[in-house]
Amino acid sequence: MPFDPDSLTYDDRGLIPAIAQDAETGEVLMMAWMNRDAVSRTLETGRVTYWSRSRQAFWIKGESSGHVQELVEMRVDCDRDCLLVLVHQTGPACHTNRRSCFYTALREGAEVEIMTPMA
Amino acid sequence: MPFDPDSLTYDDRGLIPAIAQDAETGEVLMMAWMNRDAVSRTLETGRVTYWSRSRQAFWIKGESSGHVQELVEMRVDCDRDCLLVLVHQTGPACHTNRRSCFYTALREGAEVEIMTPMA
Repeated sequence: MPFDPDSLTYDDRGLIPAIAQDAETGEVLMMAWMNRDAVSRTLETGRVTYWSRSRQAFWIKGESSGHVQELVEMRVDCDRDCLLVLVHQTGPACHTNRRSCFYTALREGAEVEIMTPMA
Repeated sequence: MPFDPDSLTYDDRGLIPAIAQDAETGEVLMMAWMNRDAVSRTLETGRVTYWSRSRQAFWIKGESSGHVQELVEMRVDCDRDCLLVLVHQTGPACHTNRRSCFYTALREGAEVEIMTPMA
């Protein structure tokens, strides 16, 4: 079946959440949002492109930082309202310079930092 | 630092997305939503509990199907507006009886089913 980005379910802002996962290690790197055109651009260019809610603009991941995400495969969930993007991540995915945005674990009721910024 | 569920950033419906990942294999199983109390219940009970947007009720994953998610660890992202829950998943996570909800891959412009329902 050919894929049509219009067949996805977007929220009332026209957005769909996209989870980025390291294609080699399986590490979950980040979650951000795409609109219809960001989905299309990601598939067409092979460069993962989100929609920045704060800037209201396309956000080609790594465009300014160099920490690009090369698309390996995009997957759609059963409800068609969430995407999983398997990526080759160059450097850190997180703006804090950590590999993943999920560097805070909750252990015994406390927040524990489990990842340090990359050199 | 002690963790306070009120310190998370919820959307205008009071919800935060939660990504469930298999703690052993790293497979991303599903994405669903939690509200403040679902976060607390998940941490207190060790049973992953979402907020069902369609039913407007707590959704203790697997309560009716038996396909429970035992919490291994909850993590918070840098913006505090997304959660990652590492889980022990019993059986399929998806209501279609597949291990993961992300069973549709986009390959060369087409939708390809990469996972079959579990026996």
